[in-house]
Amino acid sequence: MLQSGLFTKTRREAPKDEVANNAKLLIRAGFVHKEMAGVYSYLPLGLRVLNNINEIIRKEMDAIGGQELFLTALQDKSVWEKTNRWDDSVVDNWFKTKLKNGSELGLGFTHEEPLTKLMREHINSFRDLPAYPYQIQTKFRNEIRVKSGIMRGREFLMKDLYSFSKNEEEHNSFYEKAKEAYGKIFSSVGLGDITYVTFASGGSFSKYSHEFQTVCEAGEDIIYVSEDKKIAVNKEVYDEKTLEDLGLKKEELEERKAIEVGNIFSLGTKFSDAFNLDYTDENGEKHPVIMGSYGIGPGRLMGAIVEIFSDERGIVWPEAAAPFAVHLLSLGDSVSKTADKVYNDLREAGVEALYDDRKDATAGEKFADADLIGIPWRLVVSPKTIEQGKVEVKNRRTGEIKMMEEKELVKLLITLNVKPAVKLC
Amino acid sequence: MLQSGLFTKTRREAPKDEVANNAKLLIRAGFVHKEMAGVYSYLPLGLRVLNNINEIIRKEMDAIGGQELFLTALQDKSVWEKTNRWDDSVVDNWFKTKLKNGSELGLGFTHEEPLTKLMREHINSFRDLPAYPYQIQTKFRNEIRVKSGIMRGREFLMKDLYSFSKNEEEHNSFYEKAKEAYGKIFSSVGLGDITYVTFASGGSFSKYSHEFQTVCEAGEDIIYVSEDKKIAVNKEVYDEKTLEDLGLKKEELEERKAIEVGNIFSLGTKFSDAFNLDYTDENGEKHPVIMGSYGIGPGRLMGAIVEIFSDERGIVWPEAAAPFAVHLLSLGDSVSKTADKVYNDLREAGVEALYDDRKDATAGEKFADADLIGIPWRLVVSPKTIEQGKVEVKNRRTGEIKMMEEKELVKLLITLNVKPAVKLC
Repeated sequence: MLQSGLFTKTRREAPKDEVANNAKLLIRAGFVHKEMAGVYSYLPLGLRVLNNINEIIRKEMDAIGGQELFLTALQDKSVWEKTNRWDDSVVDNWFKTKLKNGSELGLGFTHEEPLTKLMREHINSFRDLPAYPYQIQTKFRNEIRVKSGIMRGREFLMKDLYSFSKNEEEHNSFYEKAKEAYGKIFSSVGLGDITYVTFASGGSFSKYSHEFQTVCEAGEDIIYVSEDKKIAVNKEVYDEKTLEDLGLKKEELEERKAIEVGNIFSLGTKFSDAFNLDYTDENGEKHPVIMGSYGIGPGRLMGAIVEIFSDERGIVWPEAAAPFAVHLLSLGDSVSKTADKVYNDLREAGVEALYDDRKDATAGEKFADADLIGIPWRLVVSPKTIEQGKVEVKNRRTGEIKMMEEKELVKLLITLNVKPAVKLC
Repeated sequence: MLQSGLFTKTRREAPKDEVANNAKLLIRAGFVHKEMAGVYSYLPLGLRVLNNINEIIRKEMDAIGGQELFLTALQDKSVWEKTNRWDDSVVDNWFKTKLKNGSELGLGFTHEEPLTKLMREHINSFRDLPAYPYQIQTKFRNEIRVKSGIMRGREFLMKDLYSFSKNEEEHNSFYEKAKEAYGKIFSSVGLGDITYVTFASGGSFSKYSHEFQTVCEAGEDIIYVSEDKKIAVNKEVYDEKTLEDLGLKKEELEERKAIEVGNIFSLGTKFSDAFNLDYTDENGEKHPVIMGSYGIGPGRLMGAIVEIFSDERGIVWPEAAAPFAVHLLSLGDSVSKTADKVYNDLREAGVEALYDDRKDATAGEKFADADLIGIPWRLVVSPKTIEQGKVEVKNRRTGEIKMMEEKELVKLLITLNVKPAVKLC
């Protein structure tokens, strides 16, 4: 993409009312726009990152049998009354609205109820199970406090998968698979080492749920981490009983702040009981379906990535999430022919590049923008590099700079396994 | 995809309260689920169709310089007060809700206001123009009557592009390009011949807007079509003055019912004036930005396709929108090895197939499901076809049946230019 044609501009200052570092950087770099507290729009660069994260999640969900659907935001009151979750004194973060005829509607903050009801039409026999529908869809939560940028919004994208199983054994086996899939997702964006499977409060059907907590000072949660065992305990269940259950000792745990980047829940028959979601087994006997829910917020994950991978100059995207694989800078009018050629060669090789071809920006402005936007590889074409017959390559993360022949460079970028160009403009 | 693993099932009857043919068929075939009047969820098959349509639209929008972003549903009252569109007596289809602190919020029924405000941060100079941001995003409209299935919903996906131009000339040139791009979109889903550029009411800044109206008995609009000139006039502006403007005579026009599948509007400086969206020209002079808006509802388009391409047995998807390129049916346990081989060969050739491998469905049920689901090519592997060393191929649209060698068939399907498998499971 030509940067001269990209309609967003970077800015020096974030809005004054923005306190979260992730949102400050993302706004300054032109990735998101703050509509109001806790409500952010995604601009072209930001949407590219979000789509990359969504695709990583989709791949892992599909690999464990997930089937994607797309439920609605508008929610029918009567459906939520079945589980007593319509009442504002039970669920305190509903956004509610009304039809012209006065009927109350809600905006979905989660989707167990409507999906369980929907699945009644498709699940009758043991042959219809298991089933793993999931969606990447907008949730609405009427939060009182929103100070964490895109990590906690009033409107945000969520990947929610729900499992429908015949029995505990089938449920547990999928639950473990989902846990592994989640691990893969966090690893592929570079958060594997600092993300812990964390024991948190369960519900009526299981003692604990599992959160995926990424250690980070900007996190809203407190967890107790066992480095050795690579697990953690959420403060909400951190007591002697839990430590005993998990065979952990206080001495081996360290208190850390963390961001909850995912969570998985065993729901038992709570929702299938409420909606009479039963199946008939091989012997003609009826049983309630066993359910689980598995959530990741792609926007929150994007925010966590920015919190962790950034420095005083800007964002440092991990390659899997980056809006482009390389950022090509052309410095000076005299070099534009050579820089154009490098850009075209990259495109032909299937390497996604943002090409800073602007005539009205100085070298200093281009360097500052590149650091702020944070694409993993910065390539520079300048009179100096042309003199040497090479291109300057800089790694945003390590700061390492190298002069490379163009051919060698393109080959390197391809072998670095940059994703093939889905959309080159 | 294995049909035995697809969690949705077809059904004989649509819900009793459903009156629209598109929704009846889509519900029966397991493409959508009715949450309540005018609110539909997309099930896996339906989401595949919707994604195909979205990709067709994206391709054309990107080709004319569109840059995708993603705005929010939650809307700030103060932003809409600038244009006097917050008031329910001015805009009668708002859904409104409230923050915990009592502040009123709206759910976006369109996005001119927040986008114009947003663009102020990115447009200052003539160098920043033109700009063509677009999104594919959920709109909410509090409609009183919803009887057209997924063609008119209270919650629905919309592609809305907005143009920001320096002057009328630049605006008009893009407007014509957008018109052409829209034509390409409707042609690629097979509606080109019956979709008319239709003159409709304009606004303060242009005499007419342009709708794309697809002739169909299920349509909610009345238009007057000139077959010769390939244009039409919407009933709302059908008077002597308009006919004179367009050089049309009553005699050459035919009254038809039609579905509005797209519309494009010149907005002039209505929104840029309200938000002070100006730019500075080469001489340092300030001018307001000229705007336009360009909408297509992917769900409505999907509904229109079903209204037009269906028969008494079910849906007849055009290839570009179909959830899969082929529907492979295995009839009888004895043939499963051969059918599995055909399925694997199709996958390897990059042909997307739904494989009806169910053991518990009769041949009659499989045929009926295939007709209802409406995938363009039905392939049958049965004891009879194996005896001949061939596969039976049926065209859903023409009903034509042919016996073909498997190799020849796979070659044919590839040359038919079926889309490459994005996701094979």
